[in-house]
Amino acid sequence: MTEFTHFDETGASRMVDVGAKPVTARLARVEGRITMHPETLSKIQQRNFKKGDVLEVARLAGIMGSKQTGNLIPLCHPLPIDGVSIDFDFPDDCSVTISATVKTEGKTGVEMEAFTAVSVTALTIYDMCKAIDREMVIGPIQLAEKSGGKSGHFLRTKPVNKSE
Amino acid sequence: MTEFTHFDETGASRMVDVGAKPVTARLARVEGRITMHPETLSKIQQRNFKKGDVLEVARLAGIMGSKQTGNLIPLCHPLPIDGVSIDFDFPDDCSVTISATVKTEGKTGVEMEAFTAVSVTALTIYDMCKAIDREMVIGPIQLAEKSGGKSGHFLRTKPVNKSE
Amino acid sequence: MTEFTHFDETGASRMVDVGAKPVTARLARVEGRITMHPETLSKIQQRNFKKGDVLEVARLAGIMGSKQTGNLIPLCHPLPIDGVSIDFDFPDDCSVTISATVKTEGKTGVEMEAFTAVSVTALTIYDMCKAIDREMVIGPIQLAEKSGGKSGHFLRTKPVNKSE
Amino acid sequence: MTEFTHFDETGASRMVDVGAKPVTARLARVEGRITMHPETLSKIQQRNFKKGDVLEVARLAGIMGSKQTGNLIPLCHPLPIDGVSIDFDFPDDCSVTISATVKTEGKTGVEMEAFTAVSVTALTIYDMCKAIDREMVIGPIQLAEKSGGKSGHFLRTKPVNKSE
Amino acid sequence: MTEFTHFDETGASRMVDVGAKPVTARLARVEGRITMHPETLSKIQQRNFKKGDVLEVARLAGIMGSKQTGNLIPLCHPLPIDGVSIDFDFPDDCSVTISATVKTEGKTGVEMEAFTAVSVTALTIYDMCKAIDREMVIGPIQLAEKSGGKSGHFLRTKPVNKSE
Amino acid sequence: MTEFTHFDETGASRMVDVGAKPVTARLARVEGRITMHPETLSKIQQRNFKKGDVLEVARLAGIMGSKQTGNLIPLCHPLPIDGVSIDFDFPDDCSVTISATVKTEGKTGVEMEAFTAVSVTALTIYDMCKAIDREMVIGPIQLAEKSGGKSGHFLRTKPVNKSE
Repeated sequence: MTEFTHFDETGASRMVDVGAKPVTARLARVEGRITMHPETLSKIQQRNFKKGDVLEVARLAGIMGSKQTGNLIPLCHPLPIDGVSIDFDFPDDCSVTISATVKTEGKTGVEMEAFTAVSVTALTIYDMCKAIDREMVIGPIQLAEKSGGKSGHFLRTKPVNKSE
Repeated sequence: MTEFTHFDETGASRMVDVGAKPVTARLARVEGRITMHPETLSKIQQRNFKKGDVLEVARLAGIMGSKQTGNLIPLCHPLPIDGVSIDFDFPDDCSVTISATVKTEGKTGVEMEAFTAVSVTALTIYDMCKAIDREMVIGPIQLAEKSGGKSGHFLRTKPVNKSE
Repeated sequence: MTEFTHFDETGASRMVDVGAKPVTARLARVEGRITMHPETLSKIQQRNFKKGDVLEVARLAGIMGSKQTGNLIPLCHPLPIDGVSIDFDFPDDCSVTISATVKTEGKTGVEMEAFTAVSVTALTIYDMCKAIDREMVIGPIQLAEKSGGKSGHFLRTKPVNKSE
Repeated sequence: MTEFTHFDETGASRMVDVGAKPVTARLARVEGRITMHPETLSKIQQRNFKKGDVLEVARLAGIMGSKQTGNLIPLCHPLPIDGVSIDFDFPDDCSVTISATVKTEGKTGVEMEAFTAVSVTALTIYDMCKAIDREMVIGPIQLAEKSGGKSGHFLRTKPVNKSE
Repeated sequence: MTEFTHFDETGASRMVDVGAKPVTARLARVEGRITMHPETLSKIQQRNFKKGDVLEVARLAGIMGSKQTGNLIPLCHPLPIDGVSIDFDFPDDCSVTISATVKTEGKTGVEMEAFTAVSVTALTIYDMCKAIDREMVIGPIQLAEKSGGKSGHFLRTKPVNKSE
Repeated sequence: MTEFTHFDETGASRMVDVGAKPVTARLARVEGRITMHPETLSKIQQRNFKKGDVLEVARLAGIMGSKQTGNLIPLCHPLPIDGVSIDFDFPDDCSVTISATVKTEGKTGVEMEAFTAVSVTALTIYDMCKAIDREMVIGPIQLAEKSGGKSGHFLRTKPVNKSE
């Protein structure tokens, strides 16, 4: 039966030994959404082609945040990262969707790096806009795709920017 | 008209000067949820009274993450923190709700510290359980209460653990 | 006679005890320059009104860098920061000048925070442009103004963007 | 035509995907200068053979700073480092030159690690001496040599400690 | 004659160049002890099967601390880590022994990562218990085993939990 | 009855709310020892008046480490620090004693900052000397003095450099 790998048989937390795992090319893509008042989104979009772009600040924060994953998540292995990209979309008049893709060659996957990238991006959008909209909602954030490693290819069929 | 305070009139990003703001007692409470397969929640709950408790690991990560807020959010002021507590609840058979309360005496609020605490807590729950459930969904995460500072008391009436 | 305050009488390094110093409002402004090929500057300026703005990325890096000052400079006191702003100017066809202003209320000054902000801003401009110009030169970087604290007001008369 | 590699075709910032690049031995050497009043340099040099050596403190800060490069420069890849050395020279009675050599085996170069090492070294010299000389000037800082990677060997012919 | 490898022939500190060293599987195990009043140990042990377990908090802190080794120890190479585990034992009525095992594949060993893990674990036990026992004593902390690398296998014969 | 303050009544870990505690001047002094082969100590002492001084490197690491206390110890409040000094002594032919004094004005004490300073200093001495002596032993490390705060003045009567 599958068990929590981050605990040993006595229940002690541990950073799992991945010494015997092969180095493979790995990719993870995580999608998230932040919902806000339509006027807030409208203000973000008006700035989208000028200096002072909320989403560019948030994108940089997300990329930098992905490099902190090993420091934030207690039992996560510190990993080199080969590349990070973050895309935004606007599925309706009150939401921004965030998609982060992280790649590496390593012994463990980069799901947590992609989750952290999306989370810090969303937190930064909130921080930049909170003076005008305190009611923004972060989430859902979920794994969209994962490849590399022995668990095989994972692809979620329903994207986060469809209404759920 | 209310504008993005993190940009100056030319659109340049900045850390807003709060030098003239008074030091006041401040509190922020942020609530979030992570949804999972019922068997995953069941496994988490079975460990709840033993060593190897997923939620205790996640709680510590969230408290430690709140101390990194100023390093993660680009234009956020670095702040001393007077106290952080994180509570969990189980509103149904497939969700954990996370409530983080952060207090300080300072010139700016601690919303972002509470948001970061909830986010890192949720990320850690995901990391601890991802070997058994890759489809967990993080969110919604939203401000529940805020006091102190000139913007007055904010209290969201509909809690995050009610179905939306 | 004025001596190195970061060493005690036996030559041991120390973080100077500032416990008896009063908390006062403090400001430091540091100016720096980065010189490059005219075609490099031209490319930077062409992007100045679009997404993908080199200087906006560098500005954010500088602001975030200022928050790391106490971690980078061994004997520097960790400090709260009330505000940071970074301005750019183009004194000729091959230079960008960087001016960082940092404010706080504290027992020690924020010169090092402003120096670090300018340095990290310049390093980021170099990083963003190094694929097209490997010969960029960082400097001079120097204190332009300082106020607050017992050493009084300091104002350099010749700005860094004048040819020297 | 060569373009900014840190932006994609839509202008979005990204950490460039280096997954397909080969791992090669890489070296970067960056040189910088800090200029000060002759009496300041004289005081630094008098301590050069005793405890309380300004330059040894600055050298350590520079080495430690090079390990923070990936955290400071937003789109820089986090890298393992094989070795760092920092040398000082005194080309005249009012300058210290700083030369940092960084080596690694990796997919990307270590220019930014060497630039960061020189910058943090210079910042620390400023911090250690600012109580006796507030007018020190940091710079020029520039790439002296780079090898490894597909861009080939780069060697600047005019060193930074010659008058320019 | 064996010399301090962290200094060059002129006495300058450096991060030693390990570029020519082969990548091998490496393991280090460090053992330490913290001594306290019997009533303090008794309180720790009473909580050992409930939430609020001092040793679980300390264990997580030790694992997370091991990931900070390269940032804390000035001339230490930053290293990927393949696995970390921390075990506790109770050799008498007033001591907790801490054993940290760290593994990696790399050019340098992981002794310092294991020493840091034990140290941060002990510091956290002190922090958690200091309100009830200010006289706890940390130490001895010493290398128990080391393998991999050209210096060969090291195994200390007298464990730290025997009285010395 | 005195209890673990870092857990609430349900056993959940928390950062204790110190919002109501007064800001007072606080001092903590922690003493530690590292024991080694006499030849190792002899080599350290021979370098004590030259560049390449093991103890100066370790002292700086300890001072910088004290600034990381809030990031290393999970439930520790992040604190400003007014001053740090670290002294060494040689009680016999095989030991170095380390004494760290930390001062602040704050709501909580600086014991952990002083413990962390001593620990990182000792770890760095180990790292600098491990190529010549793998059998060094860190400890005992213990609180020597504490003042400020409601728990009153604490002074340990038997110093760590006396044989125990």
